[in-house]
Amino acid sequence: MSALPFPRILMGPGPCMAPARVIDAVGRAPLGHLDPELFEALDEIQERLRGVFGTPNPFTIALTGTGMAGMESCFANLIEPGDTAVIGVHGFFGERMVEIAGRYGANVVRVDSEWGIPLDPAGIGDAAAYAGKVKLIACVNAETSVGVRQPLEPIAEIARTHDALFLVDAVTSLGGLPVDVDGIGIDACYSASQKCMGCPSGLSPLTVSERALEAARNRRSKVSNWYLDWGLLANYWGGDRAYHHTVPSNLLIGFREALRVIDEEGLQNRFARHKSASDLLISGLAELGIRPFPSDEHRLPTLNAVRIPDGVDDAAVRKQLLLEYGIEIGGGLGPLKGKIWRIGTMGESATTRNVTLLLGALRSVLQ
Amino acid sequence: MSALPFPRILMGPGPCMAPARVIDAVGRAPLGHLDPELFEALDEIQERLRGVFGTPNPFTIALTGTGMAGMESCFANLIEPGDTAVIGVHGFFGERMVEIAGRYGANVVRVDSEWGIPLDPAGIGDAAAYAGKVKLIACVNAETSVGVRQPLEPIAEIARTHDALFLVDAVTSLGGLPVDVDGIGIDACYSASQKCMGCPSGLSPLTVSERALEAARNRRSKVSNWYLDWGLLANYWGGDRAYHHTVPSNLLIGFREALRVIDEEGLQNRFARHKSASDLLISGLAELGIRPFPSDEHRLPTLNAVRIPDGVDDAAVRKQLLLEYGIEIGGGLGPLKGKIWRIGTMGESATTRNVTLLLGALRSVLQ
Repeated sequence: MSALPFPRILMGPGPCMAPARVIDAVGRAPLGHLDPELFEALDEIQERLRGVFGTPNPFTIALTGTGMAGMESCFANLIEPGDTAVIGVHGFFGERMVEIAGRYGANVVRVDSEWGIPLDPAGIGDAAAYAGKVKLIACVNAETSVGVRQPLEPIAEIARTHDALFLVDAVTSLGGLPVDVDGIGIDACYSASQKCMGCPSGLSPLTVSERALEAARNRRSKVSNWYLDWGLLANYWGGDRAYHHTVPSNLLIGFREALRVIDEEGLQNRFARHKSASDLLISGLAELGIRPFPSDEHRLPTLNAVRIPDGVDDAAVRKQLLLEYGIEIGGGLGPLKGKIWRIGTMGESATTRNVTLLLGALRSVLQ
Repeated sequence: MSALPFPRILMGPGPCMAPARVIDAVGRAPLGHLDPELFEALDEIQERLRGVFGTPNPFTIALTGTGMAGMESCFANLIEPGDTAVIGVHGFFGERMVEIAGRYGANVVRVDSEWGIPLDPAGIGDAAAYAGKVKLIACVNAETSVGVRQPLEPIAEIARTHDALFLVDAVTSLGGLPVDVDGIGIDACYSASQKCMGCPSGLSPLTVSERALEAARNRRSKVSNWYLDWGLLANYWGGDRAYHHTVPSNLLIGFREALRVIDEEGLQNRFARHKSASDLLISGLAELGIRPFPSDEHRLPTLNAVRIPDGVDDAAVRKQLLLEYGIEIGGGLGPLKGKIWRIGTMGESATTRNVTLLLGALRSVLQ
């Protein structure tokens, strides 16, 4: 079908590769959205997902949509016009939070950090104190645009102090890094199926605390976004299985399989594998004169943002990797376009074999 | 994996079955959302979809989400608070239009018809005349809840008279019935991948006229729904391929295959096959004493709503069909719960073999 090597070695910012048994599960005949066997799968997804998120939250689901739908669902359900949201921005996806919160009428107080450097909790604390009554504080745990890992505990502490909800984007961390929702004190956390969870794209794992659900229930107005209305989704995923929309059984059966793979591997082993693949990559790139964009202390083990060496043609290198080796890596977003590559070591892509291949290919292409 | 017969014979209101080659295509290794091969697939999807919709509209895409996301995208993009929407309601999905339009701040003028009977265009015309300035007129072409086919031409004519946009739900018609978007004069039309299009669930085919896009571009406020913002989606599907969200390559590659299947069969042949399967079903059911819910003149050839005979236990029959034969049929929604069955003859489910099996199974179960 393709003139390019297939299957692709997906080492961009996502999607990543998925295990063969997950792909096989995606490629089964469809099931109805009210089929008892699908309901079993939904229950199993919820149960296993709670383990990965580190919370017994009843409302823990795989939303129909990508990680961006997960993000939007949080602002749609939690924000009413005039509510204050303190949003930390240290990359492209923090910017998106600001954009989406604004569309739902939030009074957004943004706290910026230079791209490549984590947010300063003191700045978030000052903003929250200045803002007065804060409905929620939000930030991105693993900024895919800059490869930076954001420590969450200090920000969770600030949210508690201000009695604000704490919203976290775990798109590029869940399944590859610990996301300890209850241990940290996160009220709403979403991710994506196609990154460290090792499944194709199209679902957004989501968990919401009872406190945040209560806030959504106590809204003065209906959630304008019907498709992502948590109350309606909870009716389908929870007790009475009320039809809301025809959930994509193929993706869900695949996602269940991905969760089984995760549990068989064990979360700690999985985190270690992600880190080990990333470390191998970073040390191999160093030999080619390619250095990480963030400081070593803050760099993600799932998404490696690295500086493109001077004189190297960004697009040409990525094109050659794709056409000759079927390897995908990502370019920079926004101000980092042409300045960094974003190399994912996520899910099934995070193996010694894939990293070794990429390093060999890159060595050859850069010569 | 399942104790129930598998694969399911899906003859409910959707999803329907999909051809083996479509399922195979869904079950291929993922592609990146910026992969040149995926872009080729997106171009092919757009081109073939224009043929099925009957329009050269440039903005013709497969939205990431189910048919309900398609519905929501129309109201989200076209309605600003205070805009008047005249909505015809002759079933469950017309009700949903009212609900969603209201959430986006529409001044909704609803025109009801008894469930089972098509909308009276005169009533729509009166409502539009009474309402004054009307932003859009909306109705459902194939009401899945009642099995009724709504003639669209007279309502399109009313929309033209009032210079209103005409929005049509073609979830249970596209691919199974002619949906002649430009011939009729429809400005925004959405459907679902898992019904007559013969693909798994998760995508919503959508086409929007230049006139409707212009109305969306001229909004005073941003679309509150970022994920379904047509302008942002057009940037990805159209010229500059700007990243918006990580589209689900597995579903899209499968959907392209479903469109190829449709073109190989030919639309007219496909429509005839749906009608022939439905006619066979209805005449076979008559022998069992089961009659259609709508009048013969208005009944859909894709979704057959039929009256449950007196004394028959709705849930028990459906359960037995599923457990013993792996056949899914649907129950009634809302006021029709327990009163009708909804039997789909859609996509790959619409074959003589499947109908014959269902009739035999039903004969046995009802004895």
